[in-house]
Amino acid sequence: MNARTDTRPRIAESELQSLGERAFRGLGLTAADASDVVRVLVLADLFGLSTHGLSRIESYGERLDLGGITKTPSIRIERVAPALVTVDGANGVGPLVGMHGLRAAMEVAKECGIGAAFVRGSNHFGPISPYGYIAAEAGFASMIGSNATTTIAPWGGSDARLGNSPLGFAVPGADGAHFLLDMAMSVVARAKIRNALKAGESIPDTWGTDKDGRKTTDPKAALDGFLLPIGGHKGYGLALLVDLFAGLLSNAAYLTHVKSWVDAPDEPQNLGHFFTLIDTARLGSRAWLIERMRDFAAILHGSPAAEEGKPVIVPGEIELRNMARQREHGIDMDASVLAMLQQRAGQV
Amino acid sequence: MNARTDTRPRIAESELQSLGERAFRGLGLTAADASDVVRVLVLADLFGLSTHGLSRIESYGERLDLGGITKTPSIRIERVAPALVTVDGANGVGPLVGMHGLRAAMEVAKECGIGAAFVRGSNHFGPISPYGYIAAEAGFASMIGSNATTTIAPWGGSDARLGNSPLGFAVPGADGAHFLLDMAMSVVARAKIRNALKAGESIPDTWGTDKDGRKTTDPKAALDGFLLPIGGHKGYGLALLVDLFAGLLSNAAYLTHVKSWVDAPDEPQNLGHFFTLIDTARLGSRAWLIERMRDFAAILHGSPAAEEGKPVIVPGEIELRNMARQREHGIDMDASVLAMLQQRAGQV
Repeated sequence: MNARTDTRPRIAESELQSLGERAFRGLGLTAADASDVVRVLVLADLFGLSTHGLSRIESYGERLDLGGITKTPSIRIERVAPALVTVDGANGVGPLVGMHGLRAAMEVAKECGIGAAFVRGSNHFGPISPYGYIAAEAGFASMIGSNATTTIAPWGGSDARLGNSPLGFAVPGADGAHFLLDMAMSVVARAKIRNALKAGESIPDTWGTDKDGRKTTDPKAALDGFLLPIGGHKGYGLALLVDLFAGLLSNAAYLTHVKSWVDAPDEPQNLGHFFTLIDTARLGSRAWLIERMRDFAAILHGSPAAEEGKPVIVPGEIELRNMARQREHGIDMDASVLAMLQQRAGQV
Repeated sequence: MNARTDTRPRIAESELQSLGERAFRGLGLTAADASDVVRVLVLADLFGLSTHGLSRIESYGERLDLGGITKTPSIRIERVAPALVTVDGANGVGPLVGMHGLRAAMEVAKECGIGAAFVRGSNHFGPISPYGYIAAEAGFASMIGSNATTTIAPWGGSDARLGNSPLGFAVPGADGAHFLLDMAMSVVARAKIRNALKAGESIPDTWGTDKDGRKTTDPKAALDGFLLPIGGHKGYGLALLVDLFAGLLSNAAYLTHVKSWVDAPDEPQNLGHFFTLIDTARLGSRAWLIERMRDFAAILHGSPAAEEGKPVIVPGEIELRNMARQREHGIDMDASVLAMLQQRAGQV
């Protein structure tokens, strides 16, 4: 199922959305819930983040089939303060729970200028940037994060006790040119270390440690060990912060309490997310914001490139360019992913 | 004035607070304003962050003398939405403006569950952790940041266009054992590169670039060039985010619009800060939070040390240990800093 074919089919956004919705309905979700999940995953595919797009139908589908994820969760939202909501995802699909959290946070932020949702009882969140994009389109600046299965050792430690938790920020820009930052705390993804191993190359000693927590340049040892966070103790601190907000304060699982969906696909993970949104309209006019965001990007673009042909970019530009291209020409999809979607859709 | 003496005097917290207040009154601040400024700087000294503590009397004093910082600013606070305030610092001393922003954000956060202050018209902020500590003592989790003079090149660029902006997070812990993260986005501080140069050592090529934006292992070239951010494009993105929130959204200066206090000490910098505070009491009981924070720290401490004798620590533990020790035995101060304080205090 994971094999890539040589021909990479292209499919229009509306068609992919529709196919995805039928696939998730085939997995037992309601039409409305399937629409939420697929909106997030299609945005990921549009941004070119295909590992976090509709390809997730495979692992989500497996866990829905096994009962590890609840097909029709009764998501509960409680407004605990004028600008603060808590969300119990009732073990629903991550992007479904996430969309409920995002909408709830947008609602209170609209009313109070800033608002937050703390979400528990969820599963794999998907990437951050689709949520940040949706918020930015509605005029909100955002800080959004989720915790994740433990794969990283504490700084100076020697076993996996925290997740490579993603953290994202977005600020609305001119004509959809939003600032979109979406990052995990490891220096590189495991895939990059796997590629080095395949190529028979050593790796910088900043990428990972061996299984005893010691720095290594051997990709094999690093794959048996742990990813290293960016900036050493700084990335470690940021990863903890995300888990504190997304997990601990949300009353979700945190650190080693988070169950692995690989090792225990049939059990709830109780992952947590958080959404902090600021209504930029309360800080100044749309024209004021757009003018400043344009100027901000222009200043950065104006720095002469250190390497010929590699101009400075602002975070989000690559994803938004991918989106523009794929909205025009269709979204590049793996044939295997389309086959999975069609198979699940056939069950409706 | 910068020379360190061999004997490092110790002074009790209350005595240092009182001396500091007299010194800032000597510089023309009101008693109430001096108290705010000194509270932040003494906390920095208590945490062991002496480069960001009362030693700042030197640069703050120079700018106050020159009229670059306003001695008696009329700070204006506007509540633009139920949970959102904007603060115009009117070019006051940074920690004074910062304390106004912090208090205003705590007030709306208490009422609405989450609250934020966006601050403009300010100057050098001081370190983040004192503000995070004060908020944590009052039960607030926080995300706080400030922009700064431009010293970093955009990722892939070749001239200084963004600041090494500090970002901090805090979460209240049991018995004052708060999680305190306070970081700038560079891999190392310039001082560490200066030390390598003095020692005649080369530096890792991840610390800085030469003046053309190219990676270098030569400390001299790096000092003529730019600091590199943690995680490459990730730290670059985070530094931009801080400037977007602290500068752009606050209606303060941002990127190259920020004036250097070294090059133009007599001009207002219009720096910006932001404070986002969450009232943890709305998310669960104090006992619930303390139990979870204890467990969180215990899980991290439980990871066997990768290096004998270097146990895993949770961010904030070093600073809080320094504080406990110095509250008991007195605060270690440079004699030259005490002399400056006494000289300024003599002018009252």
